[in-house]
Amino acid sequence: MKDGQYILVVNGPNLNLLGRRQPEIYGGDTLTEIEEWLESTTDCRLVFMQSNSEGAIIDALHSHGFDAACAGIVLNAGAYTHYSYAIADAIAAIEVPVVEVHMSNIHAREDFRRTSVIAPVCIGTISGFGKNSYALAIKALADK
Amino acid sequence: MKDGQYILVVNGPNLNLLGRRQPEIYGGDTLTEIEEWLESTTDCRLVFMQSNSEGAIIDALHSHGFDAACAGIVLNAGAYTHYSYAIADAIAAIEVPVVEVHMSNIHAREDFRRTSVIAPVCIGTISGFGKNSYALAIKALADK
Amino acid sequence: MKDGQYILVVNGPNLNLLGRRQPEIYGGDTLTEIEEWLESTTDCRLVFMQSNSEGAIIDALHSHGFDAACAGIVLNAGAYTHYSYAIADAIAAIEVPVVEVHMSNIHAREDFRRTSVIAPVCIGTISGFGKNSYALAIKALADK
Amino acid sequence: MKDGQYILVVNGPNLNLLGRRQPEIYGGDTLTEIEEWLESTTDCRLVFMQSNSEGAIIDALHSHGFDAACAGIVLNAGAYTHYSYAIADAIAAIEVPVVEVHMSNIHAREDFRRTSVIAPVCIGTISGFGKNSYALAIKALADK
Amino acid sequence: MKDGQYILVVNGPNLNLLGRRQPEIYGGDTLTEIEEWLESTTDCRLVFMQSNSEGAIIDALHSHGFDAACAGIVLNAGAYTHYSYAIADAIAAIEVPVVEVHMSNIHAREDFRRTSVIAPVCIGTISGFGKNSYALAIKALADK
Amino acid sequence: MKDGQYILVVNGPNLNLLGRRQPEIYGGDTLTEIEEWLESTTDCRLVFMQSNSEGAIIDALHSHGFDAACAGIVLNAGAYTHYSYAIADAIAAIEVPVVEVHMSNIHAREDFRRTSVIAPVCIGTISGFGKNSYALAIKALADK
Amino acid sequence: MKDGQYILVVNGPNLNLLGRRQPEIYGGDTLTEIEEWLESTTDCRLVFMQSNSEGAIIDALHSHGFDAACAGIVLNAGAYTHYSYAIADAIAAIEVPVVEVHMSNIHAREDFRRTSVIAPVCIGTISGFGKNSYALAIKALADK
Amino acid sequence: MKDGQYILVVNGPNLNLLGRRQPEIYGGDTLTEIEEWLESTTDCRLVFMQSNSEGAIIDALHSHGFDAACAGIVLNAGAYTHYSYAIADAIAAIEVPVVEVHMSNIHAREDFRRTSVIAPVCIGTISGFGKNSYALAIKALADK
Amino acid sequence: MKDGQYILVVNGPNLNLLGRRQPEIYGGDTLTEIEEWLESTTDCRLVFMQSNSEGAIIDALHSHGFDAACAGIVLNAGAYTHYSYAIADAIAAIEVPVVEVHMSNIHAREDFRRTSVIAPVCIGTISGFGKNSYALAIKALADK
Amino acid sequence: MKDGQYILVVNGPNLNLLGRRQPEIYGGDTLTEIEEWLESTTDCRLVFMQSNSEGAIIDALHSHGFDAACAGIVLNAGAYTHYSYAIADAIAAIEVPVVEVHMSNIHAREDFRRTSVIAPVCIGTISGFGKNSYALAIKALADK
Amino acid sequence: MKDGQYILVVNGPNLNLLGRRQPEIYGGDTLTEIEEWLESTTDCRLVFMQSNSEGAIIDALHSHGFDAACAGIVLNAGAYTHYSYAIADAIAAIEVPVVEVHMSNIHAREDFRRTSVIAPVCIGTISGFGKNSYALAIKALADK
Amino acid sequence: MKDGQYILVVNGPNLNLLGRRQPEIYGGDTLTEIEEWLESTTDCRLVFMQSNSEGAIIDALHSHGFDAACAGIVLNAGAYTHYSYAIADAIAAIEVPVVEVHMSNIHAREDFRRTSVIAPVCIGTISGFGKNSYALAIKALADK
Repeated sequence: MKDGQYILVVNGPNLNLLGRRQPEIYGGDTLTEIEEWLESTTDCRLVFMQSNSEGAIIDALHSHGFDAACAGIVLNAGAYTHYSYAIADAIAAIEVPVVEVHMSNIHAREDFRRTSVIAPVCIGTISGFGKNSYALAIKALADK
Repeated sequence: MKDGQYILVVNGPNLNLLGRRQPEIYGGDTLTEIEEWLESTTDCRLVFMQSNSEGAIIDALHSHGFDAACAGIVLNAGAYTHYSYAIADAIAAIEVPVVEVHMSNIHAREDFRRTSVIAPVCIGTISGFGKNSYALAIKALADK
Repeated sequence: MKDGQYILVVNGPNLNLLGRRQPEIYGGDTLTEIEEWLESTTDCRLVFMQSNSEGAIIDALHSHGFDAACAGIVLNAGAYTHYSYAIADAIAAIEVPVVEVHMSNIHAREDFRRTSVIAPVCIGTISGFGKNSYALAIKALADK
Repeated sequence: MKDGQYILVVNGPNLNLLGRRQPEIYGGDTLTEIEEWLESTTDCRLVFMQSNSEGAIIDALHSHGFDAACAGIVLNAGAYTHYSYAIADAIAAIEVPVVEVHMSNIHAREDFRRTSVIAPVCIGTISGFGKNSYALAIKALADK
Repeated sequence: MKDGQYILVVNGPNLNLLGRRQPEIYGGDTLTEIEEWLESTTDCRLVFMQSNSEGAIIDALHSHGFDAACAGIVLNAGAYTHYSYAIADAIAAIEVPVVEVHMSNIHAREDFRRTSVIAPVCIGTISGFGKNSYALAIKALADK
Repeated sequence: MKDGQYILVVNGPNLNLLGRRQPEIYGGDTLTEIEEWLESTTDCRLVFMQSNSEGAIIDALHSHGFDAACAGIVLNAGAYTHYSYAIADAIAAIEVPVVEVHMSNIHAREDFRRTSVIAPVCIGTISGFGKNSYALAIKALADK
Repeated sequence: MKDGQYILVVNGPNLNLLGRRQPEIYGGDTLTEIEEWLESTTDCRLVFMQSNSEGAIIDALHSHGFDAACAGIVLNAGAYTHYSYAIADAIAAIEVPVVEVHMSNIHAREDFRRTSVIAPVCIGTISGFGKNSYALAIKALADK
Repeated sequence: MKDGQYILVVNGPNLNLLGRRQPEIYGGDTLTEIEEWLESTTDCRLVFMQSNSEGAIIDALHSHGFDAACAGIVLNAGAYTHYSYAIADAIAAIEVPVVEVHMSNIHAREDFRRTSVIAPVCIGTISGFGKNSYALAIKALADK
Repeated sequence: MKDGQYILVVNGPNLNLLGRRQPEIYGGDTLTEIEEWLESTTDCRLVFMQSNSEGAIIDALHSHGFDAACAGIVLNAGAYTHYSYAIADAIAAIEVPVVEVHMSNIHAREDFRRTSVIAPVCIGTISGFGKNSYALAIKALADK
Repeated sequence: MKDGQYILVVNGPNLNLLGRRQPEIYGGDTLTEIEEWLESTTDCRLVFMQSNSEGAIIDALHSHGFDAACAGIVLNAGAYTHYSYAIADAIAAIEVPVVEVHMSNIHAREDFRRTSVIAPVCIGTISGFGKNSYALAIKALADK
Repeated sequence: MKDGQYILVVNGPNLNLLGRRQPEIYGGDTLTEIEEWLESTTDCRLVFMQSNSEGAIIDALHSHGFDAACAGIVLNAGAYTHYSYAIADAIAAIEVPVVEVHMSNIHAREDFRRTSVIAPVCIGTISGFGKNSYALAIKALADK
Repeated sequence: MKDGQYILVVNGPNLNLLGRRQPEIYGGDTLTEIEEWLESTTDCRLVFMQSNSEGAIIDALHSHGFDAACAGIVLNAGAYTHYSYAIADAIAAIEVPVVEVHMSNIHAREDFRRTSVIAPVCIGTISGFGKNSYALAIKALADK
């Protein structure tokens, strides 16, 4: 990762509810608290974005995906992970590398969560470590 | 249902076309006419919302889903019923109970309409009774 | 619904055990108690029938299904819902409309319960509201 | 077929409704009229049986299936055709040959009607010729 | 069937080998012997055709399928039964009714023989009666 | 197993034919001979029941399934094993433990016999030991 | 096509990236350049719209779909082609005919691109001709 | 397309019946009338070929497929579209580009018509525009 | 079982952990304690073997499988039950009969445990009775 | 192989294009060159046949398949390998043994090439060795 | 992670070939070089183990899986990832947490690599980052 | 094949039982007899290896797979053919070419034997010729 670059952290649908949504699965931290914690654990500059709209997530990937200042994108696409070929096409179209993350172990839950349509076009996947999944993904991008 | 509470009635994609969309399936009433008819059949306070956007529907579920004044949500998710795991996650995340409704009998139409990804996280389902599906769902929530 | 008409309420296999069968799913009321409660909630004349036998249920549908005095049939076919094409054929053959009901939300349980072979030939489906599922179905038929 | 032998004609669920059930598919003759017509078209002695109960059909197959006087069985198992492995086992267990018949062309209707679980244990199948399906099956058995 | 009309009997691939192909399944009669036997059992005028070529069978169906003198077609399409949508389209396109026949019980053999792509467009099917399958089909067409 | 308790042995469809049905699979003993042999091999009091009717089997399970004197039920459901969710629901609903038995090794026969819909709600399964399957199941219940 | 009518050309997700997204598949022209080229090849008045949002595409179909001035809609739904039953419902609901287009041959790429959920409700499909796919679709609508 | 080149138009099984085969799907024009109409709409030299035989279609593709004078092939393979891997291999083997056409919208008909085994090796597909499908395909090849 | 013969009891992968692995499923006894208990319940001479290695289990089956002194083999193949066709081939290849056992009811757990690739080549299966499953299997072999 | 016998080498669709069809897969030799090379490598008398027509291949199998002078048939059925049950039936019907060959490794290419419907009725299969596949098959037949 | 604890790094089949196996996928480092690099990047004590044998991997998991000194296990199970339910059972049986790692992005390769049977019983998964996948997994365990 | 090179012949699980395992399928020769016979039929130096262990087979492939003296490997992987992706990965990883062989025609037996997971990474496959399958594979490698 070059000097002056930033990493974009994108959260998809329902992740704005972190802290009040099923805390036994997702933990008790709000999304803001997680974002602050992430900033405290890394020297990288982080940019955050959250949306429940598939189109807005695609727009964000487009905006940053050709920006030489963007070293990588950490994407928790929430449930869109499992069916949004449109987001997958956006990831494939842009130049900035994308890492797929999940807080929970998606393989230990419902069957539909075991298929990720975006995984083939991301550079890698990290799942199951709670908020640390984001931190590990940031480190993975920073290490490149 | 407690005094002063309201019920949210959410209509998803293409239901704004009621009255001019395939009336042999959906009947000749417009959405506005159905909303007025529903208000005439119940003492409950009703709040209405319609959108063709998956993200906007999720936003609406979030806005009302933790509101103690909201006794329940009646949701006709239209075609999103069949693939929007993001809406399903929103329903699972909120505290207010949701009832799935359909005007037509979705089991007597195309195969894809026979799978509802939101049904497992709703408290119940009512389909096949035209505009009365909404009225029965409102009654079901009011009776709780 | 015309004056003097009645509604037939048919319960299929294992529903005679209501009250002692898995009360966490089906509630603590016996079938008799539910039938009495239903009579207390409606002005419609109700006729009740229960059998564990697929053939007897078909016979009942035939007996009432061409009777001008029968305004409709509320059918909880229990497990036959999921494989009895013979009952489905009976519903399709008769003239009286049939509403499918389930006390539990069949979509939140085992996979086999998510397929109803009778749904395509019923006029509608109501599931997930406990004993109120029957009451709503009676209202749906009475409103026609 | 030997002198003095008879052929059993078994009709399964909903076939007692012939004449008033979907006449555009099944024709306008009642089951009794068809049985009388069949007797008029053949020299064979015919014995008729109809039941909506899977168990009763199995009982009938057992009663006649080891009877040296019974030259064959013509079976229209109705919807049980598509899932009753118990009837299939009964056919496999008895000694008298069974011919599967259907009045309608079961391959030109719903998908579920295209699978017959009893076909592999019958000696042959005749479908699509209305009441003549029975007459052809009787002839097939008589010709043996 | 009207005076002067004939019935076309079409045999598909490998049926020219009857008599020397797996006699335990198909019997010991040659195709010529079966054709002669069929003529001896009916008053109908019969026309015979056999080919191993899918295209030639389609050509034959076209030649006779709009001929007012042709009362019907008896078709044993052999293995083409299981995959020739081109023959199925030909049957659907012509005006003369077609009956599907098989000498063996195709449901008691390999799995692939259990699917007939031509059955939905034929008026009926007769299988399992050896050479009598043809005779029964001729009778079925003559009776119309 | 407590003093004075009995074990119910239920046999489903076609098992009344034991002794004359495919003896190469099921052996030459009649059901009565097997029942007598079972009584000779155990000290437990045994009660026997056989029916070809799904409904009657469910009724029997209900009658004995809440009886404190019944230590367990040995159930050979015959072909209902493979599709009767209604019997499975009955087993799940009652309090007495049920053991699934089969005389033949159901995994070495047709594909459809490899799926048991009742296995998940029984306490265990014993198959492949001929009449000894029943004796082992009785011992398993008596040992509890 | 009548005088004064226009044709709407709708492009879905990621097509705003044309020119910089995988040019070996999609060519080097930007969307604007393609739109200008299309105007140069036809006498029809063209209206263009692009969005990455499923809801916005539905809104656009509704806005133009009942407009007598709109002779037809050319729709490249991008990845929504493969799962957006909501867009399919919108196409079915409106009165203006819709033609599905793709620049690449979607059948020569990943498996998921081989299923179009919108094809059954469009009047036709054109794929594989690069920017000429749009021009051919416009001609097809203009020729009607 | 270079001067002096021609385009081959190949029609597969049953398309010789155009004009008398299901005119509600395929229109009332005969194949000859369509061929004449095509010649009237283009400056390209056209060569026509029709056969019901899979082998003859392959032979034709081979004959023209390496001919420098042949600018392209328009192929309506009829039902062979859905299973003839032999024709697909022929298309892949030759040098002349092939365009797949269908008069009807194959996605709005039976399920089997939704799979084209030749699409992945054609350069593009045009379906749903009646005889205009051919004209558009000719234009697509001429524009190359 | 003849005098002097022994029965081999083979335990596959992870069964060496009995007593500390999920005791709510497998009970609190160690494998050694179960082996001692089995010896106390039978007069048969027992030989025990456990391995986590597929190859070693096959070697053991080969060593004992042609030994006239070995009356039978009781095999709990653990997870290899569900995919080791190599063990299944070994069972089919040897002469000594093999009984498949499982301590838990494998049908009441994860889906993958419902398929046994070794069941078709064993003489029978016993599952669900904890350590008693082994004792019943020994008795079944001793009774032969 | 007896003195004076010959081996028939049959090549199916598109193999007449060898040498100009995808040489990176099939090599640069023409079919004639391969046939000459095969004759140079064996003492067996060879007879060659090639056709793109399924029917003609069946005819050839019939002509030689009962000929005592024919020691065996080497068959490269091309794409018919994957769906021609008619050719499979021909192989099963004749008396001369057939060896299936492929020049390329059909398992390292498209999915559809991994299923051979003729393999179960051939005596063996050889694939992946280019023209040597034919030579090895000839040797295999000569060695018998 | 407590003082004095170690992390076990297990590599499964074919990973001993790192450095000479497909370096375009797995990179040019040998397994020893990667192990040394990992030690250089962490303060944790690391223990390494590699085996091509499923049984040996299970043995290693058992040996360390109940050791209080072992803080966690990093497991790259190679191809066993996709079918070894025996390893999955071992992971579920032990007390030490296991992290699944892959060097390559398994979702961008063959289909069979997209299913992990061990993922549901691991605490998390990291894939796609080359040798850094191991380092991130060690960090994830150390952070706990 | 160069001077001084050898060919490795690897036999997998249960092939050590040749001669006493199902001789009607595998013939009466022992593995040693087959190995001696193979040496008598070729000038190539042969090295033999057999193991029932998946890991040991992988080890052997690694040992010889980068050895310039090894001209090729003949592999009969027994049942591992059908599920050992670990062996497949080993074949893909090494440099020496591997030929898959089977003595029996695996396509004429159980369904599971029709899928080979190693075929895509071998250079070719030979099956169905008994011990001659090995000899033909040796010849194929020697001819390279």
